[in-house]
Amino acid sequence: MGMFTRDIKTMNDLFVHQLQDIYYAEKQLVKALPQMADKAADKQLKDGFLTHLEETKTHVQRLEEVFRMCGAEIKAVDCPAIDGIIEEADEVAGEIADKSVLDAALINAAQAAEHYEIVRYGSLIAWARQLGRNDCASILQKTLDEEKITDKKLTSLAEGKVNLRAAG
Amino acid sequence: MGMFTRDIKTMNDLFVHQLQDIYYAEKQLVKALPQMADKAADKQLKDGFLTHLEETKTHVQRLEEVFRMCGAEIKAVDCPAIDGIIEEADEVAGEIADKSVLDAALINAAQAAEHYEIVRYGSLIAWARQLGRNDCASILQKTLDEEKITDKKLTSLAEGKVNLRAAG
Repeated sequence: MGMFTRDIKTMNDLFVHQLQDIYYAEKQLVKALPQMADKAADKQLKDGFLTHLEETKTHVQRLEEVFRMCGAEIKAVDCPAIDGIIEEADEVAGEIADKSVLDAALINAAQAAEHYEIVRYGSLIAWARQLGRNDCASILQKTLDEEKITDKKLTSLAEGKVNLRAAG
Repeated sequence: MGMFTRDIKTMNDLFVHQLQDIYYAEKQLVKALPQMADKAADKQLKDGFLTHLEETKTHVQRLEEVFRMCGAEIKAVDCPAIDGIIEEADEVAGEIADKSVLDAALINAAQAAEHYEIVRYGSLIAWARQLGRNDCASILQKTLDEEKITDKKLTSLAEGKVNLRAAG
């Protein structure tokens, strides 16, 4: 989509644009999650990142399915937000000396990505319903549910163990 | 904080770093919200952005209070995540021809910022409690509560009115 061309004329255009944005984001996360797993010291956190990597690959496939259902080209557009979230995660991780403190920061970074996705999928689902595409909405809902579960697991891990160790 | 110097050695260091990050983010939002209000066509959305601008100014002051309580320098560090979220909001807004569709996109953009803050404040509060600083946690909690209320209001506005109009 070109700059200043005002290519988004309808809600359906906005829906497809947002699909392209989150498609890019999910693909970036497929690259970032193994690196986060490498950096994690806590075994449960490391495993959690790897489990979520597999889920994220499924999220990419679901988006491709929704593109096809809408008759839209499967395409990614740059998503400066997810790039910023991943860049910030790398920066802060590079500044941390202590492994337990790093785990706390990794959880925080992962939750920023989760919440970004929660917002985007939330809007996509609402827009799909408004556009009469409950079939697309229900596929996207599966992913949203998984993102929310991952976010809750990260909170439990932080508050139940990682933060305690990091502050110790 | 220098690159590759691994200046974050303790959870308290991480807490202060995150304060500096969200301090930058809140100040960027103080600049961005009037522009979002200018772009909004729906009167309730415009007013909502302006109300949240006033709240955001209070959030900046609360962060300054927490810096002082921790004996830390009041300082912002670059936050690529919020920069990316704002950049993406500007980009997508620049591509939208229809005012009602633009309102739907503005809400989505604002919710990305809200959720970014919800994650960061959530972690800051958990870390403050872990560090025995319930006094700092309770100040940050006030802001978190306001961010969550703003997010809910945006969802209601989208689903109750703006999306319907955008799809019409």
